[in-house]
Amino acid sequence: MGGSTALEDVTALVRAELVQVNRLVEEALMPERSELRALLGHVSGFRGKQLRPALCLLVGKALGGLRPAHLKVGAILEMIHSATLIHDDILDGALVRRNLASLHSVYGHEVSVLIGDYIYARAFQMSVELPDTRCSRLLAEITRIVCQGEVTQILHRYDLDMSENLYLEVIGEKTASLYGAAGELGAAYAGGEEGLCSRMRDFGYQLGLAFQIIDDCLDVEGEESIVGKSLGTDFGKGKLTLPFLYFLRSLSAAERAEFDRILREGNPAERQRVLMERFDLSEGLAYAHRAADACLKRALGRLEGLPPSEELEALRTMTDFVLNRRR
Amino acid sequence: MGGSTALEDVTALVRAELVQVNRLVEEALMPERSELRALLGHVSGFRGKQLRPALCLLVGKALGGLRPAHLKVGAILEMIHSATLIHDDILDGALVRRNLASLHSVYGHEVSVLIGDYIYARAFQMSVELPDTRCSRLLAEITRIVCQGEVTQILHRYDLDMSENLYLEVIGEKTASLYGAAGELGAAYAGGEEGLCSRMRDFGYQLGLAFQIIDDCLDVEGEESIVGKSLGTDFGKGKLTLPFLYFLRSLSAAERAEFDRILREGNPAERQRVLMERFDLSEGLAYAHRAADACLKRALGRLEGLPPSEELEALRTMTDFVLNRRR
Repeated sequence: MGGSTALEDVTALVRAELVQVNRLVEEALMPERSELRALLGHVSGFRGKQLRPALCLLVGKALGGLRPAHLKVGAILEMIHSATLIHDDILDGALVRRNLASLHSVYGHEVSVLIGDYIYARAFQMSVELPDTRCSRLLAEITRIVCQGEVTQILHRYDLDMSENLYLEVIGEKTASLYGAAGELGAAYAGGEEGLCSRMRDFGYQLGLAFQIIDDCLDVEGEESIVGKSLGTDFGKGKLTLPFLYFLRSLSAAERAEFDRILREGNPAERQRVLMERFDLSEGLAYAHRAADACLKRALGRLEGLPPSEELEALRTMTDFVLNRRR
Repeated sequence: MGGSTALEDVTALVRAELVQVNRLVEEALMPERSELRALLGHVSGFRGKQLRPALCLLVGKALGGLRPAHLKVGAILEMIHSATLIHDDILDGALVRRNLASLHSVYGHEVSVLIGDYIYARAFQMSVELPDTRCSRLLAEITRIVCQGEVTQILHRYDLDMSENLYLEVIGEKTASLYGAAGELGAAYAGGEEGLCSRMRDFGYQLGLAFQIIDDCLDVEGEESIVGKSLGTDFGKGKLTLPFLYFLRSLSAAERAEFDRILREGNPAERQRVLMERFDLSEGLAYAHRAADACLKRALGRLEGLPPSEELEALRTMTDFVLNRRR
């Protein structure tokens, strides 16, 4: 691994299909009532990295070829992810998302909650229209698990004793589970047998764990203009991610008390800066990067022995992108 | 019609089944992780009128007998309704719901949004497990429509020119559509042919319109201790319901300007009281009651010619309950 990988290198092989996925999302979010168009159009403006649909499409191509269901699954994954982000932004009080003002900062909480619900409902609707129930069953379950992970994280805010295991469980639920579903469904709709579906779920799950660990690091060490969203929000809200949890282990009782005080006092948007003026978090960040690297090595292991193809190479490149991304 | 009808009179014939519906809801909301138990237990404490499952069950019994799917559909309807209420409470800033502190006033907005999402996801999961896709397709669509109605209502806050037609469309979407689905699915899972399903959808839809109109009246003239939720919230938030829309027609330009000023100024929780000290809303309320009565007459018309049964009588009684309820 090492070196910097552009997102475009990862998604080049499915660029045309990602355009079709976007079109499906836009069609699905075209409201009956024209008054809602501006609102839902604002959501289409959030064009993110599309890693989840790209993963589903690349797995499908690598394992037997794409079917129409792959495009729909890609659109459904992207809609569920968008709905999660919209509800997340409300939760986090984030003002910037992908360099755009977040939905709730423009339209208020009430509309944002409802638009998130609307997008979830459209995603479920699209999933039920697929010829079999694999996607709809799996994604209803994953949506539940995502919420469970997010609620658990909130319940453990300001919890300096949160274990690293619980952190990994939580990010597994709130993030990795959807990546796992993308891998599994990519394989399933290419006609892969169950063993292969489960391998590709594991690949996606480990990739998703690494993605979230790096995301949590970027919230500490990233540059807002590059990452494209408000940073320092985790610590500001009392959310203790892996770099902090590791760092906490090295503190004396007095330092721990000081850490706790900084975590709870003053302006939430300033807390992380205050902490970093007092403490050096670099060991915690290095530890988290190593943990992400270990997840990605496990992910790569799940690809071993698969028939060689350009798409398989792109999946390998995806692990490289996730580790070294700056945004 | 006329006279007062107790809820118990309406639901007596399906009391045992409603207990089973409750049990299904409780099972569905039993979380894997014990930390979430208190939260989801709080939701089970919101035991409402259960009119939607009662409607589905009575229609099923009246038209050929209950199957296991009816109980599941009843539970799904109740979960979708609960999720809507939880997200609604956030929107409305309501502090009291069914005489209990609302979820967000105890646990905060962030958790409430997620718990609503969790319950939606469990409802979809249960619907996908039914042997056919009628329920899952219909309820994903209805959930979307409910959100559309709610957003439209928000976009027309403080809109003194909102038409009565748009008001009826909005309450059709946000409330009546789910009652319509309850009627339709009750008939469908009893083996009713399409014409009958559509009649029972219409019955539910008209009943739901009347339910919402009366709800909007209770927000003006109800007693908080009886209704069991915060009142005066509609006007406080700029929501112009039927009694206000009718009343507005009778105002001079100067009175209209005064109405507008009261609608926008001062403490939201006090606005309705201030308005009622200045204006007499009784004609608007009487008009809204007549409109609800007309919906219920249309609903009763849809029952004509059905084979006589106790359950059919209970459905008739339900229209009476909706019109005359105090809570």
